[in-house]
Amino acid sequence: MKLEHIGIAVKSLGISDELFTKLLGENSYKKECVDREGVITSFYKTGESKLELLEASNSESPISKFIEKKGEGIHHLAFGVENIHEEIKRLKKNGFEFISEEPKEGADNKLVVFLHPKSTNGVLVELCQEKQ
Amino acid sequence: MKLEHIGIAVKSLGISDELFTKLLGENSYKKECVDREGVITSFYKTGESKLELLEASNSESPISKFIEKKGEGIHHLAFGVENIHEEIKRLKKNGFEFISEEPKEGADNKLVVFLHPKSTNGVLVELCQEKQ
Repeated sequence: MKLEHIGIAVKSLGISDELFTKLLGENSYKKECVDREGVITSFYKTGESKLELLEASNSESPISKFIEKKGEGIHHLAFGVENIHEEIKRLKKNGFEFISEEPKEGADNKLVVFLHPKSTNGVLVELCQEKQ
Repeated sequence: MKLEHIGIAVKSLGISDELFTKLLGENSYKKECVDREGVITSFYKTGESKLELLEASNSESPISKFIEKKGEGIHHLAFGVENIHEEIKRLKKNGFEFISEEPKEGADNKLVVFLHPKSTNGVLVELCQEKQ
């Protein structure tokens, strides 16, 4: 599978956009609010893959909870797939567990679903498929 | 900068190689011991980038310490650079701190150096340059 992006939980996009612009030597190319997920995102090109900075937009956001528990840092790895429903089937057959049963709309025009990190060595893995 | 690989700390390559082979749908293409770093590594292609599983080869390994403190999971992000010395200079000028002053030999025929995660939003960032 191809790595599509890496999600990084940050407290403040204002501070972290400045930091990652300096680190990577280039600007964020897109910002996007995903209200239903409670996140504001900011994207950077890192070759074929992307970095997605994630700031919580409310205190119930999974990003607020992640930062409370673990602090800022890498939140998830996302792999791009052609057919998310087929991949879910294949992975369930192989014993992987999912956080939700059905894919839902995420940032960046994608359908997304998350595997449970207890079945993936502590790594929160997202599958994402470009929406038609 | 281009993402070169993602390092993932695991307790047992035996168990995790099986897990990641199922997850990614393909086999590890290379295993390598890096004695001076106290790690055994296993690589997977994920498009242009790679996953590098890291098992500690002794109890003093940074991977043993990481797993003791945080459990298994994503350990670092590595960005490929053309000239690691120039990048170190550029990043130091921009206020980033490094764990070591000089690059050293890492896995996969690379010179590597790590930035301190306190200067990079909690993300352990590696710079790596292909050795000549």
